[in-house]
Amino acid sequence: MTPLTTSPRPAGSRHRQVAAPVAPGSGALRPLGLDDVSIAGGFWAARQRLNHDAIVPHIASWLERTGWLANFDAVAAGTVAATRRGREFSDSEVYKLLEAMAWEIGRTGDEALETHLDAIVARVAAAQHADGYLNTRFGNPGQPARYSQLDWGHELYCYGHLFQAAVARLRTGHRDRLVDVAVRAADHVCAVFGPDGIQGVCGHPEIEPALVELYRATGDERYLAQARLLLDRRGHHTLPDIEFGRGYFQDDVPILEATDLRGHAVRALYLSAGAVDAAVEQDDPALADAVEGQYLRALERRTYLTGGMGSHHQDEAFGDDYELPPDRAYCETCAGVASVMVAWRLLLRTADLRYADVIERTLYNVVAASPREDGKAFFYTNPLQQRVAAQETDPDAVSPRAHAQLRAPWFDVSCCPPNVARTLAQLATYVATASDDGVQLLQFVEGEVTAQLGDGATVRLAVTTRYPDDGLVAVRVVEAPDRPWDLTLRIPAWATGATVEDGGKVAAAHAPGHVVSGLAAGDVVVLRLPLEPRWTHPDPRIDAVRGTVAVERGPLVLCAESVDLPDGVALETLCVDPMLPPQPDGDGAVVEGSSVRFAEPDRTPYGAPPIPREVRSVECRLVPYHRWANRGPSAMRVWLPTT
Amino acid sequence: MTPLTTSPRPAGSRHRQVAAPVAPGSGALRPLGLDDVSIAGGFWAARQRLNHDAIVPHIASWLERTGWLANFDAVAAGTVAATRRGREFSDSEVYKLLEAMAWEIGRTGDEALETHLDAIVARVAAAQHADGYLNTRFGNPGQPARYSQLDWGHELYCYGHLFQAAVARLRTGHRDRLVDVAVRAADHVCAVFGPDGIQGVCGHPEIEPALVELYRATGDERYLAQARLLLDRRGHHTLPDIEFGRGYFQDDVPILEATDLRGHAVRALYLSAGAVDAAVEQDDPALADAVEGQYLRALERRTYLTGGMGSHHQDEAFGDDYELPPDRAYCETCAGVASVMVAWRLLLRTADLRYADVIERTLYNVVAASPREDGKAFFYTNPLQQRVAAQETDPDAVSPRAHAQLRAPWFDVSCCPPNVARTLAQLATYVATASDDGVQLLQFVEGEVTAQLGDGATVRLAVTTRYPDDGLVAVRVVEAPDRPWDLTLRIPAWATGATVEDGGKVAAAHAPGHVVSGLAAGDVVVLRLPLEPRWTHPDPRIDAVRGTVAVERGPLVLCAESVDLPDGVALETLCVDPMLPPQPDGDGAVVEGSSVRFAEPDRTPYGAPPIPREVRSVECRLVPYHRWANRGPSAMRVWLPTT
Repeated sequence: MTPLTTSPRPAGSRHRQVAAPVAPGSGALRPLGLDDVSIAGGFWAARQRLNHDAIVPHIASWLERTGWLANFDAVAAGTVAATRRGREFSDSEVYKLLEAMAWEIGRTGDEALETHLDAIVARVAAAQHADGYLNTRFGNPGQPARYSQLDWGHELYCYGHLFQAAVARLRTGHRDRLVDVAVRAADHVCAVFGPDGIQGVCGHPEIEPALVELYRATGDERYLAQARLLLDRRGHHTLPDIEFGRGYFQDDVPILEATDLRGHAVRALYLSAGAVDAAVEQDDPALADAVEGQYLRALERRTYLTGGMGSHHQDEAFGDDYELPPDRAYCETCAGVASVMVAWRLLLRTADLRYADVIERTLYNVVAASPREDGKAFFYTNPLQQRVAAQETDPDAVSPRAHAQLRAPWFDVSCCPPNVARTLAQLATYVATASDDGVQLLQFVEGEVTAQLGDGATVRLAVTTRYPDDGLVAVRVVEAPDRPWDLTLRIPAWATGATVEDGGKVAAAHAPGHVVSGLAAGDVVVLRLPLEPRWTHPDPRIDAVRGTVAVERGPLVLCAESVDLPDGVALETLCVDPMLPPQPDGDGAVVEGSSVRFAEPDRTPYGAPPIPREVRSVECRLVPYHRWANRGPSAMRVWLPTT
Repeated sequence: MTPLTTSPRPAGSRHRQVAAPVAPGSGALRPLGLDDVSIAGGFWAARQRLNHDAIVPHIASWLERTGWLANFDAVAAGTVAATRRGREFSDSEVYKLLEAMAWEIGRTGDEALETHLDAIVARVAAAQHADGYLNTRFGNPGQPARYSQLDWGHELYCYGHLFQAAVARLRTGHRDRLVDVAVRAADHVCAVFGPDGIQGVCGHPEIEPALVELYRATGDERYLAQARLLLDRRGHHTLPDIEFGRGYFQDDVPILEATDLRGHAVRALYLSAGAVDAAVEQDDPALADAVEGQYLRALERRTYLTGGMGSHHQDEAFGDDYELPPDRAYCETCAGVASVMVAWRLLLRTADLRYADVIERTLYNVVAASPREDGKAFFYTNPLQQRVAAQETDPDAVSPRAHAQLRAPWFDVSCCPPNVARTLAQLATYVATASDDGVQLLQFVEGEVTAQLGDGATVRLAVTTRYPDDGLVAVRVVEAPDRPWDLTLRIPAWATGATVEDGGKVAAAHAPGHVVSGLAAGDVVVLRLPLEPRWTHPDPRIDAVRGTVAVERGPLVLCAESVDLPDGVALETLCVDPMLPPQPDGDGAVVEGSSVRFAEPDRTPYGAPPIPREVRSVECRLVPYHRWANRGPSAMRVWLPTT
C-alpha cells in the first residue's frame, strides 16, 4: 500500500484539502479523509475488498463490452454518429468508474489500477473538443447539436460526474490529465451557461454539487457562482411539462419555495446535495434550511424502512406523503447513494448525529443490498416485497429492466453499479468527523481513525468490533492531546439500553450521541449496543403496510424469504405474532407465527369477512434484507402481517 | 327518431345481422340490437343523452382542435410529414369517434350526426392509398416506411378501430363509404400480413376482434383467417424484449399456453376478446377455455373492487396476483371498456350470468366514473384512493398526464374519451339476451326489450325501475308466445335477500339468475333487490388494503371524499367501525367512525407501536365512487381503515 499524499491547498482556496468527496469551507463538523481512516476488518472491509477485486473490474469490462467507452474513441475518430452505443447518459458511467478508481487508488495505492485509469482518461481526453465541450451523444459531426435537448440530453449531468472524478484525483494528490479535462469542461460550462449564456438547466441535476466541489478543490470561484446560477434557475419552468409533471425535474417551484422532496428521487437528492454545498460556501442559511426541511419531511413521510427512497416505478419518483408500497417500492440504489450524500452534508453542517443514523440505515439496507455476493451483479431497485420468485434470466445478459428481480450484471441504464463502486471506495470518509474540540465516531467499523482538532492536536483511535454481528465496540485511544477533548460516540436511535464503559464505569448511553471526556492515550472506551432482534411498527398513515410488523436487528432490516419457509408453507400465508419477541438467529432472527390459508376466491376477492380454512403454527427464519436473493430466486417480504 | 333498418344478411354470411357490436355465429345466448332494446329513463338514459348532446360533440371538436383529423387532410395534400400532430395512434381516436357516431345514429336516427359522420369519413377516405393502406403517421412521403415499427407504430391497431366503426355502420343498416374504406384496408392487411406476408403482429392488439367482427358483418372468410393467423403468431417473440418485458405485448407466451392476463391491461383484454371471437367462429373450445381461465383468474386475483384492471402506472399493466394498490391503481377507463368486451363475449358463449355482474360493476364504477357531469372532461385512470386533493389545472388544456387527478378535457393519449362514447352509445345491447326458449334480463334499466326466441316467436317486455336509486324492478310482459318460455332475471351476487314476485307469490331469488316461466302478455313480475349499503371485506392476500373495509350499495362502490368530512377532520385520520352497519343516505351511505390522530413522526415513521393522541367520533358520508371529484379537488378513499 503506497501512502497517499494529500495535495496542497490550491492557490486562492480557503479550503483544507482532504481525501474525501465532500470538503466544506465551514460547518459544525469536519470530514476526515481516506488517509485519516482505515477500515481494517468486518462487514465493510469485506465489501471494500469486493469492490477492488470484483466490482471495479466488472464495471470496467462491461464498459468495454457495451462499447460505451469506445464511444469516446469514435468521437476522436469522427465516426461516433454512426457507431455510438448506449443511452444518452452512458458517458457518465465511465466517469463514475473513474471516480471509483480514483478513490480506490487513493485508498490502496494500486499502481495497476492507476495505469488503467490513465488509459481510460487518455481515451476520454481525446474526445474533448478544443473549447472544452465533451460528450459522445451530442455535438459531434452527424449528431444533434450541443445543448439542443436540455430536458433529456444529460450533457451537464455527465460533466457533473466527470468533475466528481477529477475532485477525487485532486483530493488524493493527483493533478493529472483527468483534472485538466474536467477544468476545461467546467470553464466551458461557465462560458456557455453563465449569466449571459443559455438560460437553462439540465434535466438531471448533478453538476451542481460537482461544481461546488470542483470550486473547493481548485479555488476557482466561477465554479461556485455557476453552481448557484444553475440552482437558482431551477423551478422556473425552463424545462417542459412532461407526463410526469415538472416536479420530475424539480423545475416546478424554486428550491427555496419547495416544502417537499418530489419527482425523480435521484434528481431531487443530487439537487439537494448541491444546494447544501452552495449554501454552505455562500453562507446562505435560508437555502440550507430549506433543503434540510425538505429532507427531514422526506425522512419522516417518504422514506422506506431500509432508508430507500422512491415509491414509483413509472417516474422513479417520490410518492405522496406515506405512499410507501413495499412491493412497488422503487428504492433505486442510486437514490440510496444520493440520500447518503445529502445526509452527510447536513451532518457536517449541523453536527446532528441523527443524520449518521440515516447514513447507516441506507448503507446497510440499500447500498449493501445492491451487489451480489460475488460483486458481478446488482440490484437497481430495492423493493421490500417480492410476491413471486423471479424467473431465472440469462446471467450474462444486459437487463432491459431496472426492476430486475434478480441482480443483473448490467443494465441498459447502468448507473447503479458504478455508483455503488464509488460509494464503497469512499466509505472510510463516513466513519468519523472532527471538530475543534473532539472526534465523533459515527460508524462502527474495525480500524483506525486519525483526526486533527482545532489547534492541530492529533487524536488517534483504534476501533475493535465485530459490528453488526456483535454490539461491542471497543475504542482505544492511541494518541491524544494533553488538553481536554471529547470523544463522541453516536448512539443509534434504535439502541435503547446501550451502555458505555469508561475506566471501569458503565453509564447508560442515549441517542443521538454519548460524550466521553478526558481520555488519554491508552484509555479504552467500550460501547455496547443491544443487537437483539426487535419488532418495528409502521406509522398508521402508511396504508400499504397496515396490519404488519417488521423485524430489525441493530442497523439491519430483516426479511422473510420463501427459501427459508418450511415445506408446504407459502410466503403469502405467513402471519406473525408481535406479542412474542423475535429470537436471535445468527445475523438474523426467528419469529413465531402461523401459516393461514383462506378459501380460494370465487369470481371476486371481495365480500364477507374471510374465514381461515387452515391454520398451522410455523417458525420462520428471517435474514438480513441486504442478503436477499443471494440464494437464487425467492419470494420475499420485510413487512409481515400480524396474526 | 328514425326507425333503424337492420341490414340484410350479407351474401355468404351465416351470421344474423344485429344492431350490436358483437354478433357471434353461435353461443349459448344471442345478443339483441339497439333496435331491440330501448333505455328510456334513469341512470344510463341520462348518460346516453349526455353522450349524444355533449361527449360526442366534445370529442369531435377536440379532434379538430388538436389537428388529429386534419392529419388525414394533410395526407391527401401530401404535406403530412411536415405538419402531422398527435401521437402515432391518433388516427384511432377518429375511428373510435366514428364508431360512437355510428351507434348514436343507429340509436337516435340523428340526421345532423349522419351528415357530420359522412364529412369525417370523406376526409379519412381521401387519405387512403390505392392499395388500401391508411395511416397518417407512416408510409406517406417523408415518413417512416409502412410497418417499419410494428412494436410501437400501432398501424394494425388503428385499422382495428376503423373496422369496428365500419361494423357499426353495417349493423345499423348503412353500407357506406366508411365500410368501403374499411374493406379495402382489411383486404390490404390480408394481402400484406397473410400466411406468406410479414410474419409479425402489431404491438397493440385490437385488429383481432375487429377482423372477426368484420368477417361476421361481411361474410368474408379471409378476415377470420387473418385474425386467427395474428392470434396464433402472438407469443412467439416477434416483438422486442422491452423494459416492461414481452408480456407487455402478450408476446411472451402463446395465448393457449398462458395462465394469466398480464402486461398492458388494454392490450391483454382486446387480445382476449379477439381470441374468444375467433374461437367461437372456428369452434375451438380449447382457445376459448384458455382465455376464460385467464380472465377468471384475473377477476379473482387482479381486479379492483370497482371492476377496474391494471395495477401499474409504469406500463399500464396488470400486477402480480393480489397486487392491487388503491392509490396507484391504474384502472384505465379503456381497460374497463375492454373488460366489458371480454365479459360480454364469455357471457354470450357460456350463458354464465355472473359475467353480467362483472359488466354491471365495471359500467357503474369505471365507465360511468370517467366523464365529468357535463361530459366535457374525463378520467383516464381510476384510482381507489387520492391522498392529496389535486391542484386545479387549466380546464381547457390537454393533459400530458394519464393520471390526471381531476378529469381533463383531452389527453396527449386520448383513447378514453372516445372509448367511453362508443360504449355509452352501444349500451342498450348489454341489457338483455335471447335464447331459443327465453329472454335474459341482465341489466336493470327503464325501457323496452324485444326478442325473438328460437322459433321466431316474439317476446316483448316493458321494464319500469329507478335502479340503482331503488331496488324495485317491474317487468311487464307486453307480448309473449303461447308456448312455454322462460324469463330469466339476473340476480347479482351481492343481492342476498332478493325476491321475485310473480302473480302475487313472492319467492326468494338467488344469484346468478332466477327463472320465471309461463308468463303471458299483461303479466308483471317484480324483482326486489336489497340496496342497503353493505360492508365489503378484501381478500387477506391483497396486502395493500389489509385492515380496511369498503362500503357498497347495490352495484355502486362508495367512497369517502374529503369535501364531505366534518371541519377539522382529515381523510387520513378516518377509521370506521365495521360492527355498525352503514346507514342509507340518498344514493350513498353514512358510516360511524373515528378520527384518530397520532403523533407526528420524528425522523422516521417506524418504531414502537403507535399510540393515538386524539380520538374523535365522526359520522362520515360516503358517495358513489363514480361521482368523485365532481365537486372540485378532493382527497378520496374507497377502502377505509377499521378502528
